[in-house]
Amino acid sequence: MSIPGAGRPLPGFYAVIPAGGAGTRLWPLSRAAHPKFLHDLTGTGRSLLQSTWDRLVPMTRSICVVTGAAHAGAVAEQLPALAAEDLFVEPSPRDSTAAIGLAAAVLVRRDPDAVIGSFAADHVIGDQQVFAAAVAEAVATARTGLLVTVGITPTYPATGFGYVCAGEQLDVPDAPSALRVTRFVEKPDAQTAAQYVAAGFRWNAGMFVVRAATLLDLLAEHQPALAAGLREIADAWAGPTREEVLERLWPTLTRIAIDYAVAEPAAAAGRVAVVPGEFGWDDIGDFNALAGLLPVGPDGVQVLGDAQSVLSPGGRAMVVSASGRLVALLGVEDLVVVDTPGALLVASRERAQDVKTIVDLVRARGRADLL
Amino acid sequence: MSIPGAGRPLPGFYAVIPAGGAGTRLWPLSRAAHPKFLHDLTGTGRSLLQSTWDRLVPMTRSICVVTGAAHAGAVAEQLPALAAEDLFVEPSPRDSTAAIGLAAAVLVRRDPDAVIGSFAADHVIGDQQVFAAAVAEAVATARTGLLVTVGITPTYPATGFGYVCAGEQLDVPDAPSALRVTRFVEKPDAQTAAQYVAAGFRWNAGMFVVRAATLLDLLAEHQPALAAGLREIADAWAGPTREEVLERLWPTLTRIAIDYAVAEPAAAAGRVAVVPGEFGWDDIGDFNALAGLLPVGPDGVQVLGDAQSVLSPGGRAMVVSASGRLVALLGVEDLVVVDTPGALLVASRERAQDVKTIVDLVRARGRADLL
Repeated sequence: MSIPGAGRPLPGFYAVIPAGGAGTRLWPLSRAAHPKFLHDLTGTGRSLLQSTWDRLVPMTRSICVVTGAAHAGAVAEQLPALAAEDLFVEPSPRDSTAAIGLAAAVLVRRDPDAVIGSFAADHVIGDQQVFAAAVAEAVATARTGLLVTVGITPTYPATGFGYVCAGEQLDVPDAPSALRVTRFVEKPDAQTAAQYVAAGFRWNAGMFVVRAATLLDLLAEHQPALAAGLREIADAWAGPTREEVLERLWPTLTRIAIDYAVAEPAAAAGRVAVVPGEFGWDDIGDFNALAGLLPVGPDGVQVLGDAQSVLSPGGRAMVVSASGRLVALLGVEDLVVVDTPGALLVASRERAQDVKTIVDLVRARGRADLL
Repeated sequence: MSIPGAGRPLPGFYAVIPAGGAGTRLWPLSRAAHPKFLHDLTGTGRSLLQSTWDRLVPMTRSICVVTGAAHAGAVAEQLPALAAEDLFVEPSPRDSTAAIGLAAAVLVRRDPDAVIGSFAADHVIGDQQVFAAAVAEAVATARTGLLVTVGITPTYPATGFGYVCAGEQLDVPDAPSALRVTRFVEKPDAQTAAQYVAAGFRWNAGMFVVRAATLLDLLAEHQPALAAGLREIADAWAGPTREEVLERLWPTLTRIAIDYAVAEPAAAAGRVAVVPGEFGWDDIGDFNALAGLLPVGPDGVQVLGDAQSVLSPGGRAMVVSASGRLVALLGVEDLVVVDTPGALLVASRERAQDVKTIVDLVRARGRADLL
């Protein structure tokens, strides 16, 4: 499904979708066996992964997905247009640097001038055209040899995201809004978040656009062992020894997030740019975020799933109706009710971000079948 | 199961257990197909019906149950000691006068001096010995030709029950606490309830003890058509025409509660006594009442059913865990969560008495399968 007017093909641009992460704070909707990115969380009829695919299709002829062995089948099923050679299956989770680095190392062998853009499989984007324009600027900027992030203009002083601090304008042709990044900062407390927003910092949404060759150079500089491992895997990728080499080397790769491995040291060296993102973005980090995306029904209730099975004469709640059962609410306020076949969660909205507490308890009870 | 020391056999005393009522305010735990009296609501391993039976067994060699055709099988299964001739099956619900009147009319033919005592199948009683002593006084009083009710000494100014107003002491041998009833009053508002409690009124718990012949006389006087119908049915009861007569006459019987049909007019005529009940009593009218009967677990949660399947790190709630699923609560306060295979109810404690609103909505949605 292409989105009319939401971008034009960008020659030499390769999209990479890392499809991982359990979405623990969306338990029991999101499970290890059926994580967040496989769900339609916005009621559009398309999963988050499919929506990510849909918005990238107009911009590139090549989209690859990096995912775990457990989810490769589901990813292929949800994305019938995904070429087999563009589905990169990780034998085990080794964090984002290994995932994106693998894609970069394989793609650079297909196209030495490849510019890759990494976009998480489980985020939502508001305005597709504005997003496409930002990506186009990021690609133009990446061609100058910089690592480029799309920094989301904050809509509130979030404490759940890291921030990007930008300095001088870069004056890249076709990228008028690109700025040099001076530093990345960690998730702040509320007071610091307010200062960051006032100072014009942007959210780090983990979107990176970069020449594959540049990324691999940065990796070789800052994580030489990891870079060497990825190089050896990529050399074997198209040949008969892929499985053997992957099985031997993948478990040895350093587990590190790409922000720490590459983005922060590169920023310190003045080699990172940011293109502001004004398109509306959410990582649906918890049920409060999910509630923010769902329309409020006539009875004051927001339902994801089967709205016909939810009865609520008065009261305010967000309901995930995923078990086929009738869900009746009476006199409740600001509640999250997640009704799935194996488990039920009832939480106050204000505690939605603490769902991990429950997940830890479920694990402690030995109920791995419910994780 | 007899309860040691909880009473002695009272010669000529016949217990009648009307087992009816859907327990709508306990939906979705209590259903038309599996009503309140068939449930173990106190976690003792015995249903309310079985507990009612258990506490009457020491006092009488004859207990009969009056129930609807839909529940006759379940009643017989739960009460293996119930004789077939003591299971009275109503073809359709005709309210309490028809139910108790049928038992009286049949029992008086077995024993013209029978004293019957009617005790609902879905109430809980605290102190069994005090209860037995009150019933013994009521039986002694009933032998003098009065209709006797056991009036519960209020523990709070309830608005959910009718009240009994008593006058002079009766000086019946073996019934030192029996008083003459001056009138029955309807469920009061909160202010009136406080006045009733201050004036020493007692709750009308619907427990009536009376000579069967006296009850039939009162019925003949105040509801002559109903009395005539019951007489004809009882005449045919032990013979081959029972089904034919029952099928023809039962649907014609007046639907009326025994309080209105008999107790109120008899009280006006000075023919009703009350024996105070100080044994602790509850009709488990809603989930708040049920919560009052359940112990509070170490995590602040009260669970009926499978406590192992309930996780609640902090928070206060009453949970009915009846679906086999994991129920996780996070940051909730004063909530009622009723988790059954077909339906889930999440209600605030303060709205527990309005569960009927939901039941009406379920009916309006055409989901009779869930009622």
